[in-house]
Amino acid sequence: MYEHSTTVRVRYAETDQMDIVYYGNYAQYFEVGRVECIRDLGFSYKKMEEMGVRMPVVKLEIEYLRPAHYDELLTIKTVIKELPIKHEIIFYHEVYNEKKKIITRGKVELFFIDIATNKRTYMPENLRKTLEHFFEV
Amino acid sequence: MYEHSTTVRVRYAETDQMDIVYYGNYAQYFEVGRVECIRDLGFSYKKMEEMGVRMPVVKLEIEYLRPAHYDELLTIKTVIKELPIKHEIIFYHEVYNEKKKIITRGKVELFFIDIATNKRTYMPENLRKTLEHFFEV
Amino acid sequence: MYEHSTTVRVRYAETDQMDIVYYGNYAQYFEVGRVECIRDLGFSYKKMEEMGVRMPVVKLEIEYLRPAHYDELLTIKTVIKELPIKHEIIFYHEVYNEKKKIITRGKVELFFIDIATNKRTYMPENLRKTLEHFFEV
Amino acid sequence: MYEHSTTVRVRYAETDQMDIVYYGNYAQYFEVGRVECIRDLGFSYKKMEEMGVRMPVVKLEIEYLRPAHYDELLTIKTVIKELPIKHEIIFYHEVYNEKKKIITRGKVELFFIDIATNKRTYMPENLRKTLEHFFEV
Repeated sequence: MYEHSTTVRVRYAETDQMDIVYYGNYAQYFEVGRVECIRDLGFSYKKMEEMGVRMPVVKLEIEYLRPAHYDELLTIKTVIKELPIKHEIIFYHEVYNEKKKIITRGKVELFFIDIATNKRTYMPENLRKTLEHFFEV
Repeated sequence: MYEHSTTVRVRYAETDQMDIVYYGNYAQYFEVGRVECIRDLGFSYKKMEEMGVRMPVVKLEIEYLRPAHYDELLTIKTVIKELPIKHEIIFYHEVYNEKKKIITRGKVELFFIDIATNKRTYMPENLRKTLEHFFEV
Repeated sequence: MYEHSTTVRVRYAETDQMDIVYYGNYAQYFEVGRVECIRDLGFSYKKMEEMGVRMPVVKLEIEYLRPAHYDELLTIKTVIKELPIKHEIIFYHEVYNEKKKIITRGKVELFFIDIATNKRTYMPENLRKTLEHFFEV
Repeated sequence: MYEHSTTVRVRYAETDQMDIVYYGNYAQYFEVGRVECIRDLGFSYKKMEEMGVRMPVVKLEIEYLRPAHYDELLTIKTVIKELPIKHEIIFYHEVYNEKKKIITRGKVELFFIDIATNKRTYMPENLRKTLEHFFEV
């Protein structure tokens, strides 16, 4: 299992007239969580694209448990529970507010796609090797 | 069952550098689907808020089956499968491209909330009455 | 002079907690105005990119005169005042609410860029020819 | 004169199919610049709203000098050149990329509005007092 946390400050633009973060904007927060999680592993999603692999999202699930408000500093916890063995990877996300209360819980499934062929591929070897350390018995 | 369809033209702003619609933007397309579905019933979400009821999203699920591209005229199909009997309502969405191929499939669960008390409430009576016609045996 | 009008319905996502359209979202409304203005000329921005020309924005000016609210059907008026003779083009925009009151007034300057060379280029000939009719003496 | 700098990491959601940050998204970056500038003065925009004063934008100007790309860590420089004496305030923004090249230059004018009356008001006294130190002769 690999766990990572990062923070995001809620922008005015991200609120709606219900005075809370618009439900679609959590996809961006989850993106920040994934990207910083990968960076923390000494890799970067940008580098992955430069190496010819991109990761489109194939499935998204979000449960909205509490609202998030303007200017709150949210903590995005990102977890990889299983080492990807095929062409997909699942990130589990939890967003917490400053009072440590859980705001949303989500799950994002992505595919590894070879940019040149537009076909499914596997996680780049160097990322897999780093990640393996967290899943060894 | 109540079914409704509306269209949305993909904006440049909604694409990302993968040359497809960013995965988080479908939440907005689903919102357009819901809002036009309610308007089609002779009601409006705006009116509902003015009457003191708002509908925060409590659950979102999206499957991404094909990418959507810039300037495509997407069709958003919105279905209410069951007449809400409690404080929640589920909208089922399917997005199709101009070639009638399915792009995404989604499910959005919302609560009816009384703005004054911030407590769960029921679907406004006039909306329920209109909707009932589509669910009678 | 070439004038064109189109409409945009304000999405919930586009409002903020001030209960009005977030100031940055008008850039999207102006984009819709430009794109539909070009389509109305029998051309399309998408086609232009496929022909190898893209149009990045180099300057944006917006005056916010009145707020726009959720679910309002806004009219976006787009005007090309001068036939572009060099590599830039200016679109003038005015956004009106349902009461015909002006909401914002804006000006967007874009460059014609050759995608292959990434250098400035000119307006595609077929678009220019169509547009010329509106500027002849 | 009061100067402040903060950083923003470009999100995938903020890019478009031109592989650069969408022109409308700089409004959000400028918002982050303003908000962190005010926080740096020991105040916060959130607090200001809680005190009954909000700041809608009345004018926006942006020059796009270079594109910003995905995952770049942008520096947003925010400058208040003059102490507001009436109901308006102007923030000047410059956005720089990691190579210290300027990306955009902008100017945002906002009004101080009393939430209760919806009329123009003045900058809250405590913010003015803090700010005055930077403008004394």
